[in-house]
Amino acid sequence: MQTKIEMFKKHLEKMHAFNHAMGVMYYDFETVMPKNAAEGFARTVGVMSEEMYKLQTDEAFKALVKELLEHKEELDLITRREVEELSESIARTDCIPMEEYVDYQMVQSTANSVWHEAKVTNDYAAFKPHLAKLIDYNRKFALYYAPEKDPYDTMLDQYEKGMSKAVLDRYFGNLREKLLPLVEKTAAMKDSIDDSFLFKHYPVEQQRILSDYIMDVLCIDRGDCNIGEVEHPFTTNFNKHDVRITTHYHEDAVASSFYSVVHEGGHALYELNTGDELMGSPLAGGTSMGIHESQSRLFENIIGRSEGFVNKVYPKMQELFPEQLEGISAKDFYRAVNKSVPSLIRTEADELTYSFHIMVRYELEKQLIAGTLSVDELPAAWNKLYKEYLGVDVPSDTEGVLQDSHWSGGSFGYFPSYSIGSAYGAQFLDAMKKEMDVDELIAKGDLKPIVEWLTEKIYRFGCIKKPDELIRDICGQDFDAQYYVDYLADKFTAIYGL
Amino acid sequence: MQTKIEMFKKHLEKMHAFNHAMGVMYYDFETVMPKNAAEGFARTVGVMSEEMYKLQTDEAFKALVKELLEHKEELDLITRREVEELSESIARTDCIPMEEYVDYQMVQSTANSVWHEAKVTNDYAAFKPHLAKLIDYNRKFALYYAPEKDPYDTMLDQYEKGMSKAVLDRYFGNLREKLLPLVEKTAAMKDSIDDSFLFKHYPVEQQRILSDYIMDVLCIDRGDCNIGEVEHPFTTNFNKHDVRITTHYHEDAVASSFYSVVHEGGHALYELNTGDELMGSPLAGGTSMGIHESQSRLFENIIGRSEGFVNKVYPKMQELFPEQLEGISAKDFYRAVNKSVPSLIRTEADELTYSFHIMVRYELEKQLIAGTLSVDELPAAWNKLYKEYLGVDVPSDTEGVLQDSHWSGGSFGYFPSYSIGSAYGAQFLDAMKKEMDVDELIAKGDLKPIVEWLTEKIYRFGCIKKPDELIRDICGQDFDAQYYVDYLADKFTAIYGL
Repeated sequence: MQTKIEMFKKHLEKMHAFNHAMGVMYYDFETVMPKNAAEGFARTVGVMSEEMYKLQTDEAFKALVKELLEHKEELDLITRREVEELSESIARTDCIPMEEYVDYQMVQSTANSVWHEAKVTNDYAAFKPHLAKLIDYNRKFALYYAPEKDPYDTMLDQYEKGMSKAVLDRYFGNLREKLLPLVEKTAAMKDSIDDSFLFKHYPVEQQRILSDYIMDVLCIDRGDCNIGEVEHPFTTNFNKHDVRITTHYHEDAVASSFYSVVHEGGHALYELNTGDELMGSPLAGGTSMGIHESQSRLFENIIGRSEGFVNKVYPKMQELFPEQLEGISAKDFYRAVNKSVPSLIRTEADELTYSFHIMVRYELEKQLIAGTLSVDELPAAWNKLYKEYLGVDVPSDTEGVLQDSHWSGGSFGYFPSYSIGSAYGAQFLDAMKKEMDVDELIAKGDLKPIVEWLTEKIYRFGCIKKPDELIRDICGQDFDAQYYVDYLADKFTAIYGL
Repeated sequence: MQTKIEMFKKHLEKMHAFNHAMGVMYYDFETVMPKNAAEGFARTVGVMSEEMYKLQTDEAFKALVKELLEHKEELDLITRREVEELSESIARTDCIPMEEYVDYQMVQSTANSVWHEAKVTNDYAAFKPHLAKLIDYNRKFALYYAPEKDPYDTMLDQYEKGMSKAVLDRYFGNLREKLLPLVEKTAAMKDSIDDSFLFKHYPVEQQRILSDYIMDVLCIDRGDCNIGEVEHPFTTNFNKHDVRITTHYHEDAVASSFYSVVHEGGHALYELNTGDELMGSPLAGGTSMGIHESQSRLFENIIGRSEGFVNKVYPKMQELFPEQLEGISAKDFYRAVNKSVPSLIRTEADELTYSFHIMVRYELEKQLIAGTLSVDELPAAWNKLYKEYLGVDVPSDTEGVLQDSHWSGGSFGYFPSYSIGSAYGAQFLDAMKKEMDVDELIAKGDLKPIVEWLTEKIYRFGCIKKPDELIRDICGQDFDAQYYVDYLADKFTAIYGL
């Protein structure tokens, strides 16, 4: 048994090394790779992906995982969970015939580059056939994996263990019912908040200093985490001592990078505080997309856009931008970064309207996968829902159905985790408040006890605990969206004096 | 036969992909990796190196290479040369027993980290036993590979095909005889050139603009080549559309990054202009260290430190640094960047004294590998030669025998290629001058015909031609150091009015 475990760990180590190398290549691609290098990059990524596929589907390894799974009661907790995770990911890959798997990689990569171009040229028609192929493949793969199950449920469950249409229909229905009136009211009052000073000229050099300051406030050791500069910010990590957040400095919008850094900082904190014993294990890092987003959104919105946090960091901002912020109080700044205006673009949405953008995608994905909505009908359906949920007219597909990259990469069932994450965050906040004076700590800028609490309850476990398990252990109950609804209602009612 | 060739190419593609991924990891390590990430980096590099070793020593692959080599007359030129190269590198690795190979990796990695520390603390004694082990292993490996041959000749030949002690003794002997009197004369006149203005305050932001300008002058398409910022500049490349030069901006020494960019730019031009048909092949890229250095030094010194080039770029420098260069003429600048002062540190040496630093290392390596000089005697021997060749007293091992990283990485026989490269460059220049008015092109800042000539004669061949073959084909004769001696004598006699 011990020998088998060692062989298993050795194989995991190799998979980890390949993932690490590929991860660095992708990071390099996003941050500094010269633009003409794409072809050579794609070749190498192709070869490496094939190697990773072989590692994953190696017959001897599969037999080993199967055998260990049969004896899982004899394994220590980490090894058992590793065996379970690998067993599941093998099952997901293994059910797909090799030639379809290979063809899908091609379809995906072509769709992604067509989408890039289509977004620029507002040409949904060019992207449409590729999208159709991606939908077909994903539906087919979900059915290979779980023939008896609704394919969209299989997809949701892949990104967020335990998630389903039943849960989400209830969740989004509730949100819509409770928050739509508030969205409409604040939209009508949009001129009551002046945020024009956020859009003055803010030099990049000063913004970089601000980023460093924010990282300090977030208790992030820069020896473990750097800041890259990219077009679309993201966070990636190779192990708990090598996390990379990224940002984009817009000289005409200071809040953009500011909150991007706080958001990505939240993701980073999760990865940086995984247990040491998980270094190199597939269990290292966040347990699900939703829990990951709960951390980024907790820091970005619940903490970062709170009055206490703004009061704390505002003197630093005034020091860095004395002219731009002349005559602007911390209160003005707080109101400005919380201005709620229904808009067209998800990634620029404010905290209150954000989930309505997700709802649009959720409703459409559900129908696309079920086959009750065709790719021909998609743009009109998109525009109709934007009107219904957000009251806005979509002037072009570029600002509509083509705006996100997710579908072009074959990710269906991924979007809901963004919204669910915000709701998890509100529920965690409630639990945290029972044990410490969160508002006071934030106002003092002392986030250390908060990070420690989150480490103790969430971060250190990596993927050992699943999302629903974490929530039950922390909150003593199942996921409940009411905390999120209440949090938003209270916050925006107060800001708008409703 | 065709199937065998395809299998061979497929294997090469995989080796290339692994090299590419590892290369990106090293580049990331040098440029942006957070400092605490070293442990995870080392783990992954360890796993990947093992995979690469397996690819190289795979029995089926070795048999394939052997068989193809036996039929090499039937192969096209590129495949034949690939088979020859692989056959040689297999032979070099394969003659070493596995356990010694693995142990050597450890010895090397330990020696390198001990050296880093020893250099900082001026503690040669700490590094000494590791250096001894590296010397022993390298001597042993050279004898495994070629039992009948002098081991140092084997090492020289590894870095520079066809190079030997016989050639180098003659080469360095000639240099010493002809140039030592000139070095002594210019050293005595060092106060006749004022270069103090090079050491004023030159802000990094402006220096970055200067780098971009230089890259344009060098005809480098930035879509294929970026500039990273590091402690010790280097160039790396993954294919002809992905070359990375690096530099270090010293705010108190403007010529440092300026000439570093020109130097690394020369390396980059070689890689960027390899033939398209070599993309992904092990024959892509420079054919030897010496030829590579011939290009970096040709651009840095022969072109970059010529009066014509300085005249061309000086207006841009004055535009970027009006205050720092106030009252300084292009002629003053030209003289300042060519000031010759015998010094302690190789990497900071001027063009005239540079090869004397290499001679010291060459003489010592020869004796260390022959066993006629012990590691105990090394520092004293180093200091003695610095006094003899450069007339300087070495105040500490940090500024002496510990200054370079090469030996700590087990590279013996590598140093001479730096000097040989300069000499190749002068010989190429002579050939080029027979076909075009090089000085006029430089003075006009029109380097394109020069780059095209070099591409036609050198770059496009990658490793297809070996160094001695290139020289014969271009110059119609064997390597001859006289061009280099004459070039230096003419240039410095003129600058110093001797």
